Amino acid sequence: MENFTFSEHNSPVSKKEYEAFVEKKRTKLLLAQFRLRELNIPIMIHLNGMHSSGYTRILNLLNEWMDTRYIETHVHRPDTDEEAERPYFWKFWRRLPAKGTTGLFVGSWYTEPYLRFLRKEGDEQEFLDQMRRISDTEAMLTNDGMLMIKLWLHLSEDDKSKNKSEQLYNRPDYAWEVTMDDMQNGKQYTEKTRLAERVLHLTHTDQSPWYSIDASDPYLCDLNVMDVLINAFKRCIKDAEKNDEGKKNTQILPLNHIGIDHIGGISLSDSLSRKEYGKSMEKYWESLYTKAWDAHKKKRNIVIVLEGADAAGKGGAIRRLIRCIDARLYRVIQIAAPTSIEKSHHYLWRFWMHVPRAGYITIYDRSWYGRVLVERVEGFAKEEEWVRAYDEINEFEKELTDSGAIVLKFWLQISPDEQLKRFKKREKTDYKQYKLTDDDWRNRKKWGEYQQAANDMVAHTSTPHAPWNLISSEDKKFARVQIIETVERALKQLT
Amino acid sequence: MENFTFSEHNSPVSKKEYEAFVEKKRTKLLLAQFRLRELNIPIMIHLNGMHSSGYTRILNLLNEWMDTRYIETHVHRPDTDEEAERPYFWKFWRRLPAKGTTGLFVGSWYTEPYLRFLRKEGDEQEFLDQMRRISDTEAMLTNDGMLMIKLWLHLSEDDKSKNKSEQLYNRPDYAWEVTMDDMQNGKQYTEKTRLAERVLHLTHTDQSPWYSIDASDPYLCDLNVMDVLINAFKRCIKDAEKNDEGKKNTQILPLNHIGIDHIGGISLSDSLSRKEYGKSMEKYWESLYTKAWDAHKKKRNIVIVLEGADAAGKGGAIRRLIRCIDARLYRVIQIAAPTSIEKSHHYLWRFWMHVPRAGYITIYDRSWYGRVLVERVEGFAKEEEWVRAYDEINEFEKELTDSGAIVLKFWLQISPDEQLKRFKKREKTDYKQYKLTDDDWRNRKKWGEYQQAANDMVAHTSTPHAPWNLISSEDKKFARVQIIETVERALKQLT
Repeated sequence: MENFTFSEHNSPVSKKEYEAFVEKKRTKLLLAQFRLRELNIPIMIHLNGMHSSGYTRILNLLNEWMDTRYIETHVHRPDTDEEAERPYFWKFWRRLPAKGTTGLFVGSWYTEPYLRFLRKEGDEQEFLDQMRRISDTEAMLTNDGMLMIKLWLHLSEDDKSKNKSEQLYNRPDYAWEVTMDDMQNGKQYTEKTRLAERVLHLTHTDQSPWYSIDASDPYLCDLNVMDVLINAFKRCIKDAEKNDEGKKNTQILPLNHIGIDHIGGISLSDSLSRKEYGKSMEKYWESLYTKAWDAHKKKRNIVIVLEGADAAGKGGAIRRLIRCIDARLYRVIQIAAPTSIEKSHHYLWRFWMHVPRAGYITIYDRSWYGRVLVERVEGFAKEEEWVRAYDEINEFEKELTDSGAIVLKFWLQISPDEQLKRFKKREKTDYKQYKLTDDDWRNRKKWGEYQQAANDMVAHTSTPHAPWNLISSEDKKFARVQIIETVERALKQLT
Repeated sequence: MENFTFSEHNSPVSKKEYEAFVEKKRTKLLLAQFRLRELNIPIMIHLNGMHSSGYTRILNLLNEWMDTRYIETHVHRPDTDEEAERPYFWKFWRRLPAKGTTGLFVGSWYTEPYLRFLRKEGDEQEFLDQMRRISDTEAMLTNDGMLMIKLWLHLSEDDKSKNKSEQLYNRPDYAWEVTMDDMQNGKQYTEKTRLAERVLHLTHTDQSPWYSIDASDPYLCDLNVMDVLINAFKRCIKDAEKNDEGKKNTQILPLNHIGIDHIGGISLSDSLSRKEYGKSMEKYWESLYTKAWDAHKKKRNIVIVLEGADAAGKGGAIRRLIRCIDARLYRVIQIAAPTSIEKSHHYLWRFWMHVPRAGYITIYDRSWYGRVLVERVEGFAKEEEWVRAYDEINEFEKELTDSGAIVLKFWLQISPDEQLKRFKKREKTDYKQYKLTDDDWRNRKKWGEYQQAANDMVAHTSTPHAPWNLISSEDKKFARVQIIETVERALKQLT
C-alpha cells in the first residue's frame, strides 16, 4: 500500500503526548467541519481496512471528535429485499449525505465487489467493470461538489498476528463482512492484500483519493486519520472559497453535434380515426394487462419515461397506458420542481429514490432529462453540469438495465401550431386552465432552443440498452396507441 | 351499509348528462384541491370496497380530475421485509402525505386486519384491538390537521353477480388482496358484508367518517364520489379559514398532576471511583457485546432513548454505551431541529422513519419527548398539542413493544450547580464551545419549568411496556454504568 501511505506521525508517542495532540487537532477538525457545513458541502468518508485494524475505534472517535449532529454512520449490512431487488448502487444513494452533512461509510460499495472476486464468484472482467462503475459514481458525486475521502487502515502480516485486542470480532458466528478484509476463511494475507491494493489502484483519483494508514500503533493511527481529514477539509474549504474563479477552469467536453435532426425528422402526419383507435385500445389493453402480470411474476422491473413539449399529451397518454395495467403493479411519479431535500442532493437522487422494485413498474411523467432540457435552456444548470449529465444519465440507465430493468423512453413531438391550438383550448376549459402557466408561454418563445436541446438529448442518450422512442403526438390517439403498443411489445419479449 | 350511505345522485343519467356533471364538478374539485394546498393541509383518502366495484376506475378518475402533481397513489401491496420487521403502521407512516399533498390509499390499514379476522387467523379481541389502533392513529392524524376521507364502494349481492366487466381481476393467479373484499375464496357475500359493516361502524368518527357509495351504476358512483370529496374539501377549507377561532373550542384534557416529584426524588449523591468505574465497564462490555448479538439473532429490535437537562451527559453516555456494541448492530440518531420535510409531517413522523428493523438497535439522542419538554416550555407546541402528545407517545411506544421491540428510556438528572460547572468548563474547552449555545443559557433560566415538564412526562409516559429509568448523572461515571447495566439486563431477559 506504499503508494497511498499517509504518515505525518510516524514515531511513537506517549499517552500524554497523544492526548495533547488530539486536544489540538480536534478543535481544528471541528472548526473545519463547521465551515464545510456553512459552505453546504456534503462529505463522504469511506472507512475500510484490515480485519482487526481498529476501524470501530476510528468510527467511534470520529463521532466523538466531530459534531455528531451532522454525521450519519452507515456500517455495511446485508441487503434488505428492497435493496436486493434494485440496482447495486440504490442502497448507497438512499444513504448519501445531503449538503452540509457527513456520511461515514464503513465498508461501503467496495466490500461486495472485492469479496465476490476474492471468492471467485465473479471473473476478472466483472471485477474491473465494478471498479469502473465505482469510479464513475465517485466522479459523478465529486463533480457535483461532494468531498470524498477514502481511508484504508493497514496492518502488516506480523502486526496482524500480534493484534489480539479485538478477539471477539473473530468469532465466526457473529457478523457479516463489513470491510474488505473481514472475510473469515482461509485466504492468505498476501492474496487479500494484493487484491485490496488493486482496488485502491483502480479507484484512486485526484478527486477521490485513497489514504493508507498504518494501524499497528493505535495512537499514531488516530493522529494520522485526524491529519488526513483536517488536510482534506482545509483543501476543500480553500477550493470552495475560491469558488467560481476555480470553476471556470473546469474542462467542458465539447458537445458532439452529430448533425442528424432526430426531432425534425419525426413525421407528424400520422393519425388514427376514432374507430381505429377504439379497436387498437381494445386489442392492447387485455394483452398488456396480462403481460404486466407476467413481468411481475418474472420479477422484472420496468421504468417508463415520458418527455415532450408542453401540451404534447404526456398526461393523457399516461392515463390511457395505466388503464391497461393493474393498479397494483405501477406507480406514476410526477416530476415537479425539486423540494428542499431533493435540492440538497445530486440531481439524480430523487429519481433513484423512485426506482421500482423487481416486478413493478414506475412511470415517470417528466424525468432526469429535465437536466438537459428545461434546466439547460433556462440556465438552471450550468453548462458544465448539463454537458456532464449526458454521461451521468447513460451510466444511471446502464445501472438500471444491468440490474435487469427495462427502460422505455418516449419523446412526444407536436408542431408549434398544434401546441398553440392546445394552449388556447386550455385557456377556455375551466379545469384545464391551471395546466397553462406563464412558463408555458415563455418556453414556447424558445421553441427552437428546446428543439435543439431535445435533438442533442436524443443524439447523446439513445443507447442500445435504452433507446429513445420518438412519437408523433400531433394526433393524440395515434400517440397513445404507439406508446401502449411499444410497451406491450417490450413486455412480450421478456424472457 | 345504510348508516354510511351517501347518494346525492340516485336517478340514472345519460352519458351526456354525466359528462356535463363531471365537467362542472371537476372544476370545483380542482379549485378546492388548490385551496387546500395553499392552506397546507394534508389529505388522506382511503378507497375501499367490494371486489369488482370499480375502485380502479375511481382511482384513475381521481388522478385525472385532480392535479396529479400533488397526489401520491398507494395501492396495498404485500409487505417488504423492511416493512414486515417493523410495527404494522410503519409502512403507512413512510407513505403519509406531507402538508399540501394528497395520499390516495387503496386498501390501506383496513385490509389486513379485516382479512385476518375473516380467515380466522386472529380472534375477536385482536380484531377489536386493531380497530381501536386504527381509530387512534386516525385521530392522531386528524387532530394534527389532516383531512381524512374514507370511501366504501358498495355492491348488493345481485349487482355483484351481474358485474362481469372486470373479469380479469377475478383470475386467482393474479393478485394479492387490495381491498377488503378482494379475497378469492368461498366466503359468502353476507358474511363478508357484515364484517365490512362492523369495520365501518368501529372506525367511523366525525373527524374520520366513512361514506358508502352504491357502485352498481358507474356514472352515479363517479358523481357521488365527486360530491363526497367536494363537500369534504369545502368543509375543511371553511374550518381552516376560521382557523384559530375554531381551535379555541378544542377540548384540552386537564393534565392529571399526580403529585409525586419523580425528578426531585432522584438521589444525586451516588458516584463511582475511577477504579470501580473501570471494573464495571470491563465487566459489562463483553457481556453486552455478546448479548446484543444474541438479540440480533433473536430478531428483536431495540429502541433506546436518552433525555435529560442540557449538559447532563447524554452524548458521553451514548459513546460509552456504543463501545460495548458491535458497530454493525446499532445506529445513533441525533435529534436536531426538524428539517422542512420533517416539519411538513406529524411530529412523530421523523421518529417513525428511524425505527429499527428486527435485530437492530436505534439509539435516540433526544427524541419524541421534545414535544412535551422543550416544545412545551418554549411554546413551540400549542397546549392542546403537547397535552395530546402524552397519549400519542404512549400509543406509539405500544406499537413498538407490540411488534416485539424493547423500549428503554433514560432520563439523566443533574443539579443546577453541576450544570453551571459543566457550562463553564465547556466555555473554556475549545472543542466543546460549540456545544454551548444561547439556548442553553435561556433554558437554564427556566430550570423549574423544565423540571416540571420532565416530571409530568415521567408521570404520564412511564408505562408498564416502556417505563422510564431515572438516572442520577451528577457523577458521569455512575450514570454511564447505570445505563449500560440496564441495557445489559434488559437484553439478558430476552427470550
